[in-house]
Amino acid sequence: LDGEFDLIARYFKHPAPSGMLGVGDDCALFSLESGRQVAASTDLLIEGRHFFPDVAPRALGHKALAVNVSDLAAMGAAPLGCLLGLSLPTVDHEWLQGFSKGFLGYARESGCPLLGGDTTRSPQGIVISVTVFGQVPQGAALRRDAARVDDDIWITGTLGAAHAALRWLSGEWPPDPRLLAATRGALEQPMPPLGFARGLPGIAHAALDISDGLAQDLGHILAASGCGAVLDYAALPADPALAGLPAQQVREAVLVGGDVYQLCFTAPARHRERIAALGRSADVRVTRVGRIAAAPGLRILDADGRAIAPPAGFDHFLSR
Amino acid sequence: LDGEFDLIARYFKHPAPSGMLGVGDDCALFSLESGRQVAASTDLLIEGRHFFPDVAPRALGHKALAVNVSDLAAMGAAPLGCLLGLSLPTVDHEWLQGFSKGFLGYARESGCPLLGGDTTRSPQGIVISVTVFGQVPQGAALRRDAARVDDDIWITGTLGAAHAALRWLSGEWPPDPRLLAATRGALEQPMPPLGFARGLPGIAHAALDISDGLAQDLGHILAASGCGAVLDYAALPADPALAGLPAQQVREAVLVGGDVYQLCFTAPARHRERIAALGRSADVRVTRVGRIAAAPGLRILDADGRAIAPPAGFDHFLSR
Repeated sequence: LDGEFDLIARYFKHPAPSGMLGVGDDCALFSLESGRQVAASTDLLIEGRHFFPDVAPRALGHKALAVNVSDLAAMGAAPLGCLLGLSLPTVDHEWLQGFSKGFLGYARESGCPLLGGDTTRSPQGIVISVTVFGQVPQGAALRRDAARVDDDIWITGTLGAAHAALRWLSGEWPPDPRLLAATRGALEQPMPPLGFARGLPGIAHAALDISDGLAQDLGHILAASGCGAVLDYAALPADPALAGLPAQQVREAVLVGGDVYQLCFTAPARHRERIAALGRSADVRVTRVGRIAAAPGLRILDADGRAIAPPAGFDHFLSR
Repeated sequence: LDGEFDLIARYFKHPAPSGMLGVGDDCALFSLESGRQVAASTDLLIEGRHFFPDVAPRALGHKALAVNVSDLAAMGAAPLGCLLGLSLPTVDHEWLQGFSKGFLGYARESGCPLLGGDTTRSPQGIVISVTVFGQVPQGAALRRDAARVDDDIWITGTLGAAHAALRWLSGEWPPDPRLLAATRGALEQPMPPLGFARGLPGIAHAALDISDGLAQDLGHILAASGCGAVLDYAALPADPALAGLPAQQVREAVLVGGDVYQLCFTAPARHRERIAALGRSADVRVTRVGRIAAAPGLRILDADGRAIAPPAGFDHFLSR
């Protein structure tokens, strides 16, 4: 935060919420309600890998924070604040205005104020590092290793829109400007179901956010919890924008499409009504899509009970 | 933390301390003693700007964490844990072994366990993002804006060694392999006075760590606290390795040399004995070097009371 390049202070300074110390000292400070734990997560976003160089800076600012806040949602944690590290090849004030608007706008919307950061020049390309903190009642965090046999499997929101937009933007699918327009928002400005997630501790067992595709991410829960699962393909909530696409493209988008930033969680069957009510009160679509099983492995069944093989995995790490 | 590139799990996984959740879930979790605040700080380190491409990876791992832990020391906070983001152009296992050894070694030494992270590929150059958390008694953090008129100004450790090593390594000073060997450790493996710092809340008023040079960093305290200062140049603890250098080089290294990661703090005169005792018990050299004044500005006086102009500032941001 020193020298001629103090962009955090210039573009991101704003009064810290009461009881907190924000931008400008060696550390940010925040307090907890007693009996709570701090949850923390960090992400690096690299130009050319995680975002296109020509992405709208405002959308990028939103997304850089949203993908991290999504990790708080996946623990059932309420946001406390965030730190931003920003490394830029040149000081482009127009870019910074857009980026800070998107970042601070989502910070306000999600109740996750920016409390500090670090700026530097990078010889090549933009690097964005975001760290978020949240609080969760002691012992109530939704961990990946907490799924139990016979739990229902649930998903918030819809699947596949961000993946489809990415395919169209990268030219890997035949161009379709109308459908790109209908799905691009899901890719560029994800909205994690934060309010809904804060109601899950005490109801859900395991949870995570879908960032690398449902099949792969649910696999993390199964591996950590030592169990298997059966998914009902027909129940999966494909995004309505995908309705007219060939079945194979829909299947790919729904099962292995990443960048979803919605939740996949497990919960005992006795909580079905509470979960539906929580969805209604948070205005979040929530869909029951399968069941945790004792037998290891992930089985995906079609409407006739036949097994579906998920399309070859996409390492979003390499493809974005 | 997903995909084929899960280097955090491979090189950095280790059991989390009890009561904490480490690498492998959406967030890290840690708990606080009640009546404490969380302090958090983040830094981005970029290859070619903050470190030489050929720096020993083990030293780099140490330094990447130490410069952040230094920010905790500067708040008087006790480390709770850290997160690591690592972006690499290629997967070089030898480099990763060295880097993780240095990072985890200092994590152990400083009591700042690694609790999570993020790995990705970067098209060019290594990017390291470190975030640290610490705890400090509610309201006791050592802020930059807390200096008071007539406070003593203190410095831990010595000044100038890291700057001199950087000058020799970059060829800006005539080569001196013997002195480079004597100072290189200060540049590459700084040791923030963490134990000493934890004793400062309740004794010191303002504090920060010297990362951009004493003149510039003390200036931050003066600006934030709305006061001035008088420094006694002869009292400044120049590193013994600089003893034989021309006076001008020593002056530059001591007054504007960065990368020190020692503390500059202010405290009322009545605490001189307690501070000296704290230094003895923590085995940290501590030197009284000046006084906070009501008149704004930083005045540096030589042994005869004549004003010294600090050498032209170095923006370490741009020069490293």
